[in-house]
Amino acid sequence: MIIELKKGIGAERANQIAKENNAFLIEKTDKFVLISSSGQKTLDPKYNDETLATFVFDNDMQLSSRQYLNETRAVKIGNVTIGGNSKNTLLIAGPCSVESEAQIQESSALLKSLNLTTLRGGCYKPRTSPYSFQGLGLEGLKLLKKMNEEHGLTVITEVRDATHVQEVIEYSDVIQVGAKAMYDQGILRACAKTQKPVLIKRGFGTTLQEFVQCAEFVLSGGNENVVLCERGIRTFETKTRFTLDLCGVSYLKEHTNLPVVLDPSHAMGHAYGVPDLTRACIAMGIDGLLIEVHPTPKLAKSDASQQLNHEEFKALVKTLQPVAAAVGMNIV
Amino acid sequence: MIIELKKGIGAERANQIAKENNAFLIEKTDKFVLISSSGQKTLDPKYNDETLATFVFDNDMQLSSRQYLNETRAVKIGNVTIGGNSKNTLLIAGPCSVESEAQIQESSALLKSLNLTTLRGGCYKPRTSPYSFQGLGLEGLKLLKKMNEEHGLTVITEVRDATHVQEVIEYSDVIQVGAKAMYDQGILRACAKTQKPVLIKRGFGTTLQEFVQCAEFVLSGGNENVVLCERGIRTFETKTRFTLDLCGVSYLKEHTNLPVVLDPSHAMGHAYGVPDLTRACIAMGIDGLLIEVHPTPKLAKSDASQQLNHEEFKALVKTLQPVAAAVGMNIV
Amino acid sequence: MIIELKKGIGAERANQIAKENNAFLIEKTDKFVLISSSGQKTLDPKYNDETLATFVFDNDMQLSSRQYLNETRAVKIGNVTIGGNSKNTLLIAGPCSVESEAQIQESSALLKSLNLTTLRGGCYKPRTSPYSFQGLGLEGLKLLKKMNEEHGLTVITEVRDATHVQEVIEYSDVIQVGAKAMYDQGILRACAKTQKPVLIKRGFGTTLQEFVQCAEFVLSGGNENVVLCERGIRTFETKTRFTLDLCGVSYLKEHTNLPVVLDPSHAMGHAYGVPDLTRACIAMGIDGLLIEVHPTPKLAKSDASQQLNHEEFKALVKTLQPVAAAVGMNIV
Amino acid sequence: MIIELKKGIGAERANQIAKENNAFLIEKTDKFVLISSSGQKTLDPKYNDETLATFVFDNDMQLSSRQYLNETRAVKIGNVTIGGNSKNTLLIAGPCSVESEAQIQESSALLKSLNLTTLRGGCYKPRTSPYSFQGLGLEGLKLLKKMNEEHGLTVITEVRDATHVQEVIEYSDVIQVGAKAMYDQGILRACAKTQKPVLIKRGFGTTLQEFVQCAEFVLSGGNENVVLCERGIRTFETKTRFTLDLCGVSYLKEHTNLPVVLDPSHAMGHAYGVPDLTRACIAMGIDGLLIEVHPTPKLAKSDASQQLNHEEFKALVKTLQPVAAAVGMNIV
Repeated sequence: MIIELKKGIGAERANQIAKENNAFLIEKTDKFVLISSSGQKTLDPKYNDETLATFVFDNDMQLSSRQYLNETRAVKIGNVTIGGNSKNTLLIAGPCSVESEAQIQESSALLKSLNLTTLRGGCYKPRTSPYSFQGLGLEGLKLLKKMNEEHGLTVITEVRDATHVQEVIEYSDVIQVGAKAMYDQGILRACAKTQKPVLIKRGFGTTLQEFVQCAEFVLSGGNENVVLCERGIRTFETKTRFTLDLCGVSYLKEHTNLPVVLDPSHAMGHAYGVPDLTRACIAMGIDGLLIEVHPTPKLAKSDASQQLNHEEFKALVKTLQPVAAAVGMNIV
Repeated sequence: MIIELKKGIGAERANQIAKENNAFLIEKTDKFVLISSSGQKTLDPKYNDETLATFVFDNDMQLSSRQYLNETRAVKIGNVTIGGNSKNTLLIAGPCSVESEAQIQESSALLKSLNLTTLRGGCYKPRTSPYSFQGLGLEGLKLLKKMNEEHGLTVITEVRDATHVQEVIEYSDVIQVGAKAMYDQGILRACAKTQKPVLIKRGFGTTLQEFVQCAEFVLSGGNENVVLCERGIRTFETKTRFTLDLCGVSYLKEHTNLPVVLDPSHAMGHAYGVPDLTRACIAMGIDGLLIEVHPTPKLAKSDASQQLNHEEFKALVKTLQPVAAAVGMNIV
Repeated sequence: MIIELKKGIGAERANQIAKENNAFLIEKTDKFVLISSSGQKTLDPKYNDETLATFVFDNDMQLSSRQYLNETRAVKIGNVTIGGNSKNTLLIAGPCSVESEAQIQESSALLKSLNLTTLRGGCYKPRTSPYSFQGLGLEGLKLLKKMNEEHGLTVITEVRDATHVQEVIEYSDVIQVGAKAMYDQGILRACAKTQKPVLIKRGFGTTLQEFVQCAEFVLSGGNENVVLCERGIRTFETKTRFTLDLCGVSYLKEHTNLPVVLDPSHAMGHAYGVPDLTRACIAMGIDGLLIEVHPTPKLAKSDASQQLNHEEFKALVKTLQPVAAAVGMNIV
Repeated sequence: MIIELKKGIGAERANQIAKENNAFLIEKTDKFVLISSSGQKTLDPKYNDETLATFVFDNDMQLSSRQYLNETRAVKIGNVTIGGNSKNTLLIAGPCSVESEAQIQESSALLKSLNLTTLRGGCYKPRTSPYSFQGLGLEGLKLLKKMNEEHGLTVITEVRDATHVQEVIEYSDVIQVGAKAMYDQGILRACAKTQKPVLIKRGFGTTLQEFVQCAEFVLSGGNENVVLCERGIRTFETKTRFTLDLCGVSYLKEHTNLPVVLDPSHAMGHAYGVPDLTRACIAMGIDGLLIEVHPTPKLAKSDASQQLNHEEFKALVKTLQPVAAAVGMNIV
């Protein structure tokens, strides 16, 4: 149950009502919102005069639910809006890891030549092994910042763990919470305290319900600029790296009010499947894409097999607008 | 290793070579083909004069492999060709179960009004419970045959188990081997003895390797008209009925020479997701689709929640050709 | 809802009541039982005089449910009873495939030397590839029959598909419905028409609910001698062949009235893990075990890596009785 | 490849050799160890005079591998040793969450009455929803510390995220890295800097290879007191909360040198299955168990359904020693 209180109800009274109803209190700019997860289905009539609206529902979602807000929230990524009435599908691209200034300059030039606006690149890599390349860290963040300043590109990079969450919030335009970090309440609560957009990747073993609850940590903490990213779940099939869950995307589009971005590169794990999957994602009418592209994939320090090279990427981009147009969307 | 023997090598000698190499012998119209799964990598030079071609490969496929035949096989479904150079995406539609003549006449009329050619409908239902509706059986097959004769529709229906495989082969234009029956060698070997097209559905717990091996039972048994159908795999996610594995479809397109059909209705399990998923499948450039549509889904005797009604289906069909065109395909 | 009718109600009237309630009718020796899967929760009071007992429940089980029969059914395997009050854990052992008389004689001698009574061996192998060894077929069945006649061993072998179900029913003492065949209603219905014990293996992608429903096909068809066998499910983990689902076994023990047998050999896929897992299974207090043992595993024509050799098996057997005793059971 | 350098090689030279071989350098008390994940299989002969031992292997493990150290490492938990030659199975018990001093005193009294030494209790709960009880935090840690001081109990509690890792290291005797936090390199690296034992829970979507790599972060960082904990993986089966992976435990026992603890409570998710599963785990010959027990489970603020009450727990404990004895182990 979500209860919105009337304007003018003060913080003290709001707290009191929350306590009396065992509810979680959220202070918005102009009102107080209470969320009760107790299964309670009605509010005592004595609160009627103080209540603006009550949303009663059974599902596993609250602020992210279509029953609470029946539209896709608009989120601004740099100068581009996704969700809302935008009809935009934002194509985010770049290498798996930021490896050097030369490399990331090449990536930036590629994006500029294609009129793309948003550059991705990992600085803190959540590698399985402690003995592998772990990313450039702060040096990488500074290179991304430089790309933003020199080329006007919006940059997005991943928080791997809490040790560097403040740095990423400071340097990056969009904060990506990685698939292995998305249960981390410390990171989620830190992201709730900024107004920068937060892209949360679904863990590969994470149910849709748990995934959406991670967004609730950010939404309820004060940042409404949340984007969900499906990037493949782990199944019994091992011929591909993960299994891109487009049925799950249908569920998210139907039941949540959050924009949805897809990452076919990580799901597939092999460059050969990325073009077909990218087009399939666009035909779903989704809000954005994350595609890995590297000047020389074979030399990449991480995820070499799934990154497109620049020629492959250019060829792919040419084919996307017609698919988007066929479903009433626009590639930006 | 696949070894093609020269024309003119007689059956006796072919058998002898097969035996000497512990290989499986296939007699084609004009030649003998030997398949060795022993891991053997070369043929003794003494056979050189009798050998037309040798295909050595490491993967889990043989006749269905791109290394053996580097193109998509053409398969004729009624008057329509899929695969090959056809650029066709065949839209197969109809109710989950054939329930009555009135119902299947309505379905047929719907297809005709949309210029669609191929009608699906289950007669032997692989229901989980013995206490549920099990399908009309032979009566249903006869109704499908009638639709073929009255309306010229190509009909496809499922073999649930071996008790009725001969009936389905006799009455149906395309034989569908169901997801729960696809490991059944008795059924697969029976399908190998007809020349009618066989559409094999992937089991929901079946790896891509096992899936393709089922096709090998039919291909090696003498029927080359085999079509693969992905219809969702079982994962930890339960908000949707199954998880449509489009990464797996990318794998099949890259590594096999068989046409691929998709069934988003069963994967999703909820009508609301079917339109988006159908468009995503088409954007993959696949060879066909199976969509469930019922005059009054709420009254359906099986799979009520996932079937579109006729209005929803018509609205969907209107949106498909632009997506197909965007990827160079044609809806038929 | 299960409704038992009073003795003396004739077949005609029973049929009428079934029809009026849209229920499935089962004729037992001394009474009629009706099963309604319609969600109906009460019977019209007009039937009160004809009703012996009514079992109303919400779960996915009927005749196999603890709510219908709150005890483990006793099933006789040769001269040994499992389930009921027997406190027996039956150790079934033998090679993956019957390969030759010499081999199966060796296996029989091993069992006799250890006072074991029940020999397993596959004759129709559900191999993934059509190009692999497919089993000795009828010749293998005859060899098993010979072991029964010469050594008094109870023999169990697998039905792979419907082409040989009658042969297996004729030659084998216990009919095993394989993990890939367990959805096959033709096989299940054939098994319902014998009174020989039927051991149903859980498919590796099969939910517990579907698994138990397969047993319902046999139970409702007239054969109450049904045993469930858990043999590992398919998960994302590939270091082991499957994942033995002992949590699922706890569920089956709590909610069903059927004996449960475990097959750690197939679950693990590697001989090294079989001893520990066998002891774990026994400590669960289960009704039986299927263990693969081969005179020379390296030369086995199927599943070479998971079979114990005779020395390993003897060493294992020595350790089992103390574990069984610790949980109040007896290895037989 | 792991390379141990001879004693007396200085830090500078060790660093140089590491750099020349692109290897990760670990400084132990008495020697330097280099780990190369490059796939390199031999060391240049020029280093022969400086090399003590070289371990070349293909698997996914390094310091945790049986090929590097072919025994189970001994780890001291309070006054009790597990692993090594101890033959101990440590029974760790307590409530899911520390809720109040009264509750945790009751839990402590229970343990003392059963001569158990190690108390578990969560202070920072990794709840799915931000609107649920999140744990007592530091107040809970202080209560655990009090139990340690008053009753001499060894206490273990979970790190949920990096915001409180230092507090847990300070207050708890054993640091538990939770299933949702186990990929967190910040936490793992912090745990590497203490010498307190670290129990790492396997993520429910985590492969065995990834799981062991998490241990490598701690081992390579300087703390060798690492214990692995299997607590159920997420599969398609939903009748139980998770699926306890005992096949995986067999793999870990065979291939790693780390002690293994099991948590059947979380795997099962229902109290009814915990006794059977606990006995099964013990029969595997494992090093420890985590069992959830609560004075009044129905009132528990988290995981109410899976916690045993005190009477059930006492009844369970009575049955464990015979099972342990049957496999040569001792419950402590």
